[in-house]
Amino acid sequence: MLRLDERRLLDALDELAGIGAIEGGGCARLALTDDDRIGRDLVVGWMKVLQLDVRIDAIGNVIGLRAGRENLPPVMTGSHIDTVRTGGRYDGNYGVLAGLEVVRALNAAKITTRRPIAVAFFTNEEGARFQPDMMGSLVYAGGLGLNEAYAANDKDGCSVGDELRRIGYLGPARPGALRPHAFVELHIEQGPILDEEQVRIGVVESVQGISWTEYTVTGVSNHAGTTPMRLRRDAGYLAASVNLFARKLAKEMGGDQVATIGALSLRPNLINVVPNRAVFTVDLRNTDEAKLKQAEARVTAHIDEVAKEERVDAEAKILARFEPVNFEAALVDRVERHAQTLGLSTRRMPSGAGHDAQILGLKLPAAMMFVPSIGGISHHFTENTTDGDIVLGCQVFADAAAKILKSN
Amino acid sequence: MLRLDERRLLDALDELAGIGAIEGGGCARLALTDDDRIGRDLVVGWMKVLQLDVRIDAIGNVIGLRAGRENLPPVMTGSHIDTVRTGGRYDGNYGVLAGLEVVRALNAAKITTRRPIAVAFFTNEEGARFQPDMMGSLVYAGGLGLNEAYAANDKDGCSVGDELRRIGYLGPARPGALRPHAFVELHIEQGPILDEEQVRIGVVESVQGISWTEYTVTGVSNHAGTTPMRLRRDAGYLAASVNLFARKLAKEMGGDQVATIGALSLRPNLINVVPNRAVFTVDLRNTDEAKLKQAEARVTAHIDEVAKEERVDAEAKILARFEPVNFEAALVDRVERHAQTLGLSTRRMPSGAGHDAQILGLKLPAAMMFVPSIGGISHHFTENTTDGDIVLGCQVFADAAAKILKSN
Repeated sequence: MLRLDERRLLDALDELAGIGAIEGGGCARLALTDDDRIGRDLVVGWMKVLQLDVRIDAIGNVIGLRAGRENLPPVMTGSHIDTVRTGGRYDGNYGVLAGLEVVRALNAAKITTRRPIAVAFFTNEEGARFQPDMMGSLVYAGGLGLNEAYAANDKDGCSVGDELRRIGYLGPARPGALRPHAFVELHIEQGPILDEEQVRIGVVESVQGISWTEYTVTGVSNHAGTTPMRLRRDAGYLAASVNLFARKLAKEMGGDQVATIGALSLRPNLINVVPNRAVFTVDLRNTDEAKLKQAEARVTAHIDEVAKEERVDAEAKILARFEPVNFEAALVDRVERHAQTLGLSTRRMPSGAGHDAQILGLKLPAAMMFVPSIGGISHHFTENTTDGDIVLGCQVFADAAAKILKSN
Repeated sequence: MLRLDERRLLDALDELAGIGAIEGGGCARLALTDDDRIGRDLVVGWMKVLQLDVRIDAIGNVIGLRAGRENLPPVMTGSHIDTVRTGGRYDGNYGVLAGLEVVRALNAAKITTRRPIAVAFFTNEEGARFQPDMMGSLVYAGGLGLNEAYAANDKDGCSVGDELRRIGYLGPARPGALRPHAFVELHIEQGPILDEEQVRIGVVESVQGISWTEYTVTGVSNHAGTTPMRLRRDAGYLAASVNLFARKLAKEMGGDQVATIGALSLRPNLINVVPNRAVFTVDLRNTDEAKLKQAEARVTAHIDEVAKEERVDAEAKILARFEPVNFEAALVDRVERHAQTLGLSTRRMPSGAGHDAQILGLKLPAAMMFVPSIGGISHHFTENTTDGDIVLGCQVFADAAAKILKSN
């Protein structure tokens, strides 16, 4: 069992959280801002102190490499250090700093592992400033071209390319040049399940496929007092009907199917006018691609049916579509085994959120593990995990990593 | 049959529509703005040309009085000349200018009626700038105190009292000082029924009671991917559920019950976050007070039930509540009879919109008649009525008025 220094890990999390700190204890380090640069500089500094070979690629991904005994593909770990505008201190940062803590522990114990170990942080995982999210890992895995990524603009018209150059993180390495043996990511759950069930370690088997669609419904605006119900063509009615249908659908399908109507706006949005326009989003997720497709088809069929009844038009625009990713069974088993060896309760689960590991998992063996998020709160400054869970998670992660570092 | 000059009426509508004209042929003459003042000055000028005795009261209502043979309470007609921001040219204006056309016709034919006739326009019927709507008639009928009305502010903090003074329409007369024998209002339908059924004259029996409530729902914001359906406390779900319930309720209750969810906003209104807050409005209307109360109670019960299931809080705020008004049966019959005498198709109907006549109807015998609105469009610059219907409506109105002017 690799011996970690709990204090060192917690202090590093504290120090990084001090950059772009917001009231309430959270962080705002949007990708490629000055605060992101300062955070990057701090973490790169730590990598150098740990004598890692730091490589920055052309999309700003940073990889710190520690040589192994043999010239084999490295075991890579890491996550991201950008945050949303009202972010917490653990989301992403935990996985990166836990990786560095493992390196520190190896250095302190003067252990040279069989395979090299690489600790990485990927650019713009959150997608809070530039779309798409998971941008750095997408480019790394070949799922997004460099020029396309460079051209992404924020709301103020600043591009990823210009901002990378401005903050000094448009590096010389070719994204994906280093092809790891495996990738393991440690992360907070960002959901309530482990906390609710009082389980210490989430063994992540898969990442849910995500289907995001925006619907624009066009009906007819009419006076709420003078228009008989039978003559209405109410765009808001269809939106409401999809909300209830989505709930019913998720319940019927069961398993890990979730469905959310998160955004909705009506026009003219007046108390006494039948809405002539509704724009709303449908977020569907499932770990099973066939079931996700089924959910999409049933929502579409419902919309078609109600749109016809209500004599409104509904136009669909796909905003995002990721297939589910299944993690490598052997790696998943290993994470579970090491947690159980430490006497910790575990739970196999899918990830409902998107992560860099799911992108890398499309190209190479990958796995993830979760620690509990108190109350399931995420993307908010009240996001929290106990120090005990932070430390336990890192220990399981270190043990699993140590084992994988020995593997063929 | 009083002989009208069609061209004169249509030209007057044109000329008034030229003030505060907006693209597309509509008008924006919000109450007590400069454009409202110019419109008022024009109509007051016409009243003076017609030798009416013009009286302006302390809430800015303007009454033009034409003496009768006997010193009896006058028959009053009229409506309003303020419009919404995207208003049409007929809403309100038609009733006022049709009244003046009747006076012109009486003058031209040198007829002195038994009772005096009064043509009035009431301040701020629309409520688009200052609340409550129907302000001038409310003060006239004693339903709202002068000081309370004066204190109403627009969004920029300008008060009714100051604006009345500024535009020179805070007059010396006491609102309600002149107590008419009866009030008859001619108006466009603002709904689709007459147009759809190809009926020329709507004989208005009653005005729907109006119940406006705003609900603020508080749930819990959560990640759309990681939060299982059973743990959700989705504020948007309750809002959607009320929309569908309101539709079902109106269909079940039938008759003239209508129910509208016109305004809705979600927070944080993001595709991948379960809404923790929904603010939405419920607009219920019925001509039967008991049924309106029943509809309110059923919506409340539904909200209580679903809020409990979803573990969200719902807070209600009553925005407006008017009881239904039934017009004077004898006057309603008279309007119908005169329309039928002219060979016109008629339809008895309630008014779904609010009108000055409903306020005056609380204090004295009142009636209304409608002409068709093409496509039922209202409060929009595409509001329209054919010239033919404008003229026919005015003729029926003139005949009915002439008869009432003779009555005891």
